[in-house]
Amino acid sequence: MEYIEGKRPVIEALRGSVPLKCVLLADNVKRDSLVADILRKAKNQQVPVREVPRKKLDERSARGSHQGIMAETKPFGYAGIGDIVAAADRSAQADGGRALVVVLDHVTDAGNLGAIARSAEIVGACGIIIPNKRAAHVTAATYKSSAGAITHIPVAQVPNLPAALKRLKQEGFWAAAATEHATDLVWDANLKGKIALVMGSEQEGVSRIVRESCDFEMKLPQVGRVASLNVAQAFTACAYEWLRQNRG
Amino acid sequence: MEYIEGKRPVIEALRGSVPLKCVLLADNVKRDSLVADILRKAKNQQVPVREVPRKKLDERSARGSHQGIMAETKPFGYAGIGDIVAAADRSAQADGGRALVVVLDHVTDAGNLGAIARSAEIVGACGIIIPNKRAAHVTAATYKSSAGAITHIPVAQVPNLPAALKRLKQEGFWAAAATEHATDLVWDANLKGKIALVMGSEQEGVSRIVRESCDFEMKLPQVGRVASLNVAQAFTACAYEWLRQNRG
Repeated sequence: MEYIEGKRPVIEALRGSVPLKCVLLADNVKRDSLVADILRKAKNQQVPVREVPRKKLDERSARGSHQGIMAETKPFGYAGIGDIVAAADRSAQADGGRALVVVLDHVTDAGNLGAIARSAEIVGACGIIIPNKRAAHVTAATYKSSAGAITHIPVAQVPNLPAALKRLKQEGFWAAAATEHATDLVWDANLKGKIALVMGSEQEGVSRIVRESCDFEMKLPQVGRVASLNVAQAFTACAYEWLRQNRG
Repeated sequence: MEYIEGKRPVIEALRGSVPLKCVLLADNVKRDSLVADILRKAKNQQVPVREVPRKKLDERSARGSHQGIMAETKPFGYAGIGDIVAAADRSAQADGGRALVVVLDHVTDAGNLGAIARSAEIVGACGIIIPNKRAAHVTAATYKSSAGAITHIPVAQVPNLPAALKRLKQEGFWAAAATEHATDLVWDANLKGKIALVMGSEQEGVSRIVRESCDFEMKLPQVGRVASLNVAQAFTACAYEWLRQNRG
């Protein structure tokens, strides 16, 4: 559950089909054209609107920028790792043995999580596994950057990534860490079949303890002089290499 | 030249090394901690600060959200298409004949332009060609999403994309359009050597007239049911396929 504050952010959330529990309207808010737009969209999407004293909004506001309007999101429905394993079994049966599960080692930006979900859904990944602490979870920003895909791919929050990788390996997955420390290029890695693709955080990459839980490491060559790849871009390039190696 | 308005956007611009001509401060602005932070950062980066009547800011403000602070950006230094051709020649000589030029057919989001520039710089692309009308140009948002890479890759604005592609083809490039209408998969396209990789707009993809100026078309398979690939993600996947086919 999360509060979205301010007129334009609430309009964006309604436009982006973020599941909303309700819209909260300060009793003294000025009924301008943006507010009228919010009320119309909320009605169309059957999101209840509650008029409350402005003081209530002030109490809930994290940033003090509510402008008399806030929206409360519905809690995201996380999957269990068992759901993802089952989806991977179905995928492997249907698609000649291939299945992809994405494991994010403390990606911290909710927008990156959404961008990864968008590409993951497109390449046919079976699910995304994220830690339940110190990592991005699904927020309104995730809905937006995923272009809605986040509601169509299972996301599991786990307390312990090495344990999750152990489970996946028992289920027949190979765990591959995408890390700049790798010696092999992604094109030389064997990505055939059931792969758990592990991507690291924006700042630190894949941590030592998670790398030790992987079967192999690989990297994308980076010949530029300035930046390093954004994690969602790196994921997409690796995911397409998985798809290339597994084409029917 | 562009105005950035509001305390936090100006702080972000200073943090992201957006080249600024000056910071404009309303004479009656409250000197809070954010303003102090802006003054300190501007001084460190030798960006002049000018105090002006608040009315001046109101006149320049596009969104009315300046909060008494605006920053004026320096104009971006665009390259000519000849600069990009020359860079490509150097790249081809140094890297076994390979060179990549990115051609964007009316990408409209300045953030996408930056994300493309970031990945382009990393794979060693020689430049980006964009239309000079009805398309994103380099703004503060581009600096941010490029993580600074936009200052390290030549960007040329041209009046006519088919003419630019004709020029590139005369210089020995193959022009490849990434489009969902293609029959060939990107993995089956021949991306060896000097490639002009044409990506389409977020809404329309590559236009008919630009497709007709290309030598061949190719697509990334999309097996998902919901979203389509973000243009920057699609670019990165195609660019890495170019790099794979041209590995030394």
